[in-house]
Amino acid sequence: MTKQILSILTLSLFISIQAIAQQIVSPDKSIQLNFSLNAEGVPTYQMSFKDKEVIKTSRLGFQIKEDEQDLKNGFTVVNSENSTFDETWKPVWGEESEIRNHYNELLVSLKQEPSQRIMNIRFRVFNDGVGFRYEFPEQANLGHFVIEKELTQFAMTNDHTAFWIPGDYDTQEYDYIESRLSEIRDLMTNSITSNLSQTSFSPTGIQTSLLLKTDDGLYINLHEAALIDYSTMHLELDDKDFVFNAWLTPDVQGSGPYMMAPATTPWRTIIVSDDATDILASRMTYNLNEPSKIEDTSWIKPMKYVGVWWEMITGKSSWAYTDDLKAVKLGVTDYTKTKPNGKHGANTKHVKELIDFASEHGFDGVLVEGWNEGWEDWFGHSKDYVFDYVTPYPDFDLEGIETYAKNKGVEMIMHHETSSSVRNYERHLDQAYQFMKDHGYNAVKSGYVGDILPRGENHYSQWMVNHYQYAVEKAAEYKIMVNAHEAVRPTGIARTYPNLIANESARGTEYQAFSGSKPNHVTVLPFTRLIGGPMDYTPGIFEMDLSKLNPDNKSHVNSTIANQLALYVTMYSPLQMAADLPENYNRFLDAFQFIKDVGLDWEKSVYLEAEPGSYITIARKEKGTNDWFIGNVNGKKDRVSEISLDFLDKGKKYLATIYSDGEDANYRTNPQSYTIKKMNVTSKSKLSLKSVEGGGYAISIIEVR
Amino acid sequence: MTKQILSILTLSLFISIQAIAQQIVSPDKSIQLNFSLNAEGVPTYQMSFKDKEVIKTSRLGFQIKEDEQDLKNGFTVVNSENSTFDETWKPVWGEESEIRNHYNELLVSLKQEPSQRIMNIRFRVFNDGVGFRYEFPEQANLGHFVIEKELTQFAMTNDHTAFWIPGDYDTQEYDYIESRLSEIRDLMTNSITSNLSQTSFSPTGIQTSLLLKTDDGLYINLHEAALIDYSTMHLELDDKDFVFNAWLTPDVQGSGPYMMAPATTPWRTIIVSDDATDILASRMTYNLNEPSKIEDTSWIKPMKYVGVWWEMITGKSSWAYTDDLKAVKLGVTDYTKTKPNGKHGANTKHVKELIDFASEHGFDGVLVEGWNEGWEDWFGHSKDYVFDYVTPYPDFDLEGIETYAKNKGVEMIMHHETSSSVRNYERHLDQAYQFMKDHGYNAVKSGYVGDILPRGENHYSQWMVNHYQYAVEKAAEYKIMVNAHEAVRPTGIARTYPNLIANESARGTEYQAFSGSKPNHVTVLPFTRLIGGPMDYTPGIFEMDLSKLNPDNKSHVNSTIANQLALYVTMYSPLQMAADLPENYNRFLDAFQFIKDVGLDWEKSVYLEAEPGSYITIARKEKGTNDWFIGNVNGKKDRVSEISLDFLDKGKKYLATIYSDGEDANYRTNPQSYTIKKMNVTSKSKLSLKSVEGGGYAISIIEVR
Repeated sequence: MTKQILSILTLSLFISIQAIAQQIVSPDKSIQLNFSLNAEGVPTYQMSFKDKEVIKTSRLGFQIKEDEQDLKNGFTVVNSENSTFDETWKPVWGEESEIRNHYNELLVSLKQEPSQRIMNIRFRVFNDGVGFRYEFPEQANLGHFVIEKELTQFAMTNDHTAFWIPGDYDTQEYDYIESRLSEIRDLMTNSITSNLSQTSFSPTGIQTSLLLKTDDGLYINLHEAALIDYSTMHLELDDKDFVFNAWLTPDVQGSGPYMMAPATTPWRTIIVSDDATDILASRMTYNLNEPSKIEDTSWIKPMKYVGVWWEMITGKSSWAYTDDLKAVKLGVTDYTKTKPNGKHGANTKHVKELIDFASEHGFDGVLVEGWNEGWEDWFGHSKDYVFDYVTPYPDFDLEGIETYAKNKGVEMIMHHETSSSVRNYERHLDQAYQFMKDHGYNAVKSGYVGDILPRGENHYSQWMVNHYQYAVEKAAEYKIMVNAHEAVRPTGIARTYPNLIANESARGTEYQAFSGSKPNHVTVLPFTRLIGGPMDYTPGIFEMDLSKLNPDNKSHVNSTIANQLALYVTMYSPLQMAADLPENYNRFLDAFQFIKDVGLDWEKSVYLEAEPGSYITIARKEKGTNDWFIGNVNGKKDRVSEISLDFLDKGKKYLATIYSDGEDANYRTNPQSYTIKKMNVTSKSKLSLKSVEGGGYAISIIEVR
Repeated sequence: MTKQILSILTLSLFISIQAIAQQIVSPDKSIQLNFSLNAEGVPTYQMSFKDKEVIKTSRLGFQIKEDEQDLKNGFTVVNSENSTFDETWKPVWGEESEIRNHYNELLVSLKQEPSQRIMNIRFRVFNDGVGFRYEFPEQANLGHFVIEKELTQFAMTNDHTAFWIPGDYDTQEYDYIESRLSEIRDLMTNSITSNLSQTSFSPTGIQTSLLLKTDDGLYINLHEAALIDYSTMHLELDDKDFVFNAWLTPDVQGSGPYMMAPATTPWRTIIVSDDATDILASRMTYNLNEPSKIEDTSWIKPMKYVGVWWEMITGKSSWAYTDDLKAVKLGVTDYTKTKPNGKHGANTKHVKELIDFASEHGFDGVLVEGWNEGWEDWFGHSKDYVFDYVTPYPDFDLEGIETYAKNKGVEMIMHHETSSSVRNYERHLDQAYQFMKDHGYNAVKSGYVGDILPRGENHYSQWMVNHYQYAVEKAAEYKIMVNAHEAVRPTGIARTYPNLIANESARGTEYQAFSGSKPNHVTVLPFTRLIGGPMDYTPGIFEMDLSKLNPDNKSHVNSTIANQLALYVTMYSPLQMAADLPENYNRFLDAFQFIKDVGLDWEKSVYLEAEPGSYITIARKEKGTNDWFIGNVNGKKDRVSEISLDFLDKGKKYLATIYSDGEDANYRTNPQSYTIKKMNVTSKSKLSLKSVEGGGYAISIIEVR
């Protein structure tokens, strides 16, 4: 039977299905979700917040590859269950020490005719948003199947303002664009800036996590949670009707994900509020992930670190040891017979200087990139055997450094650049992790620069999603923490695998050395990229004129020093780098003091004020102390931030140290102008602080006993 | 500069290059090879045997992907070196205990203008043929590059007769076609029989190893040696001029291999003689491979084995444990809660019966397929996590069987079906090999049924060639012998890694259960598939009417019992299965005696008579004894084979046991008719033995002391 004939049959058989509607609301009743089947048995949902519609009636379902019947219509409701859940759990690390997971649930069980297949849809309605996923229970008529297209829609009510980056199967390292939905198509081409691996797919294709703002004052975030064994979701906008259609990252053959019942999809998430700070405060994405599968988490520890990195990013030094080699054969190439290029960053003497600096200033770790053989031809050759992860360059005394760091009380952080040659990485993974443990490394920064090998796969396809997951789970076996760069953006999986302590998956500080990011970039990231988990943003740049590090680098860091300090608070991560060079910190030790002082792991967080693209001000209380830290990052206009310290314990006295933009500060022409002011504060204090464009302030508030 | 302009420039610059010719001959002067550069600086070669031209002037070189200049013309000879080599080496196992490697060599160093790149071509001329390869030394102007097309040609002198199978990126499991070159195009479509994974590429594309026969009596074999880190070569015929063009198996993006200087290609080989037995006796393919990289080879031992296999192939029993499951989730699916299907072959009781049988009849090993969880959905779903290689079915008592086999002096042979999900296999490889060693398994039969994962790759692309090599090299680390099925056809690599004790890579005995093979199939394989290394052909079928095993199986084994016995001699392999069921052997124990007696490893081999497609008669002397074994397989016509036993030691007396076709034997209607005759023989004896179509004879010759 052809698919066409079957569709007609289906239509005639089920045209008479009665429309059915079911409703659930959030615990606080602010959010209302309606599920219904239309006359053709197509599942749909609709959602509103405080009586404002957030998602218009939107279809649900799937197009299935080479199957007789798609999973899109002909459904009837065979069962539905309502339940409620309320639990508080303690994350291993995070923005607060306890997270409440409170929702009402509707599980709709759908049966399709004539296929007799069962597809369930599970909705969870929280006070801060909605998550839903598809579930395929074990059943006689559905085993293996391949999804050709996920038909999930998110129908917008209007031509909202969006903070978006171009849809891409390989990179998220784009500057955010703020525009109306109707403007996306025209702005797309110029928004696709160059990257070492990139694959765009549609002139209206954009990425999640996406932030939208409506004209009637709603903030909406669309993303997904628990992306496990599935293809990464993008959104393609029908810009006539303002409907977002799910767009899954295909495999090399244009299909996927490959499914096998019993199975569930990731959660599709819609966070909503009329207050932008609620978006930042939302824990829904974590709540939709499974509890930790790692039983003993005592070895997972937040880290503040310095490293041999920014000097290579700026071009001051190099990852490569020599300029002699056109091609490296690992195990064959004899580096001792090559001429060193004289600017190799990861040399023993220099690394020991970094260890000294870290030790002197109380940092937990030192990251070293370019320590291992293979960097001479690491990129751009589709090279399979690119690194072995266990062979240091001749000038990197691995064991000497190990001992030196240990004696100084500093941990070394390993670097594994894969060059996206993931078969090679998987082949070496056990050995590489064991090598780390043998040499006292408990954390790894991994990288996926360049096009994926196996060739034709993309960074965000199911194949690669499974790889990143494999690397994280295997790392957990070795008690290793992972900070994966260029990997798929996080979806709250760190709840389940808290050894995934950070990701990059966005435009990080490195782009400040590649041509600069927008001065308000960091006022968007917490609303988008950070929804899924922490980012290793690598802040702390004090020298904004990069030609001072490398005369050939004409890029400028679009930020003030005060803004850089604030990032340690506003860009939550259990892994925080002080990315600039020691010599630059030594020039501004008074400002550097904030980086040394600022907490890493938090008892609670108070989101004082926020507007995407404009400003974010957050106060956080350090876990195990009474110390608070506040960060404010400012967008494109000078602004006075008025905040109340009423979150402080009443009756207690505190000493505040305020690091703010100097009067004459300017992110472009005078970024190093800052002032430091100390004052006593209490819970009754109010502060009024000016931040310049691309600027901000940082405050440490220490209890005075 | 565009490629077009460059080509014109090149042409004008180098049109004046002087044609240069160099010649080398084989040690016995029978073969003459001429290398020359034509007026455009294109390298060419030409070859003759005893003054008959074998290869007409044929071009050499490469088309390079996205490079300014292909490696095809503009060459001058900057150096050439002649040398000679003569060495005798001892294989770990083989058709003879010592192999002479004797050749004259010409190394031509070519420099290209204007690219300044160096490409060397190394020719080795043996008495039995020519091998040549390209070499790219380390140089300033050539590092990484991607071959788009290898331009190597093999220009035939005429419309020869060929014994060919369709070119395919995924399978060699085709029946051989005997035809004129000019007939290939018309015969192609019908020659492509169905297979579980197959990708043909051209109506005149065929595979190596290819056997050709000329009208003036030459036998020519075209193949390759030492296929390492390169794409498998096919041949595409220009059937107007009878020129074969090299056709490399592309990667998923249509390119490859990916090269990195210093590098060498595999050897392109041309074996030639005017006596067909010389083709069988040629050791050139091994000689062109590197000596063993395994230092201690004491653990590598030829094996004769039985197994739980033919019963599944014929459909009598099953690999799967249950028929309940549509999809298996390893580690989640609980088999103890499923209903056994009642025909699972790999159950403890049955395996112990096989162990008893092996022990009673002196076999070294027992292979068991279907012992591990996952067979319910192992094929056809592009399933990633298909097997874990360490979890037995509930009815397979791994440890009990281990002990039982050990007590009976029998080795168990592990089976690893990968379902071509090679990432999954590589992820489990260390654990799987360790599991084998922990449970006393020293040999593995691996399988690559179905389309490759990573999707879009093919069985014979560089990616997969590297995988098979990885599996063999890693096995060597664990002292494990590998018999890889559905892997790329061998190219003599077993010299370098003698733990690669066999491959399938051709139409094996299993096809006798799938519809049957041609009755003369086994008179072709030794001239083609076996040129590169041993085949696990799994002979020894005594019951040719397969409906007796499984009423639903209508296939017939196109062979007589005597022919099946002869295969143990004619199809050389250090791994020989007695593939039929014990109950069938028990019906013909007198014939079975030959399988029990026949040697596995040989002191020397004498190729008595041979004609591809018609007959092969080989005598071999068992290593460490004075016993000889003779096998004759016959083709499509009844024939009387006249042989002299003059290879026997003069003066010694021997008892010959002759197993030959019965007078009324017929491979279709009366295949179980055979006679066994014992007689005393000496080196002066001559035998005249009749073999029927698809028949043959086998003789054991034991010294009488």
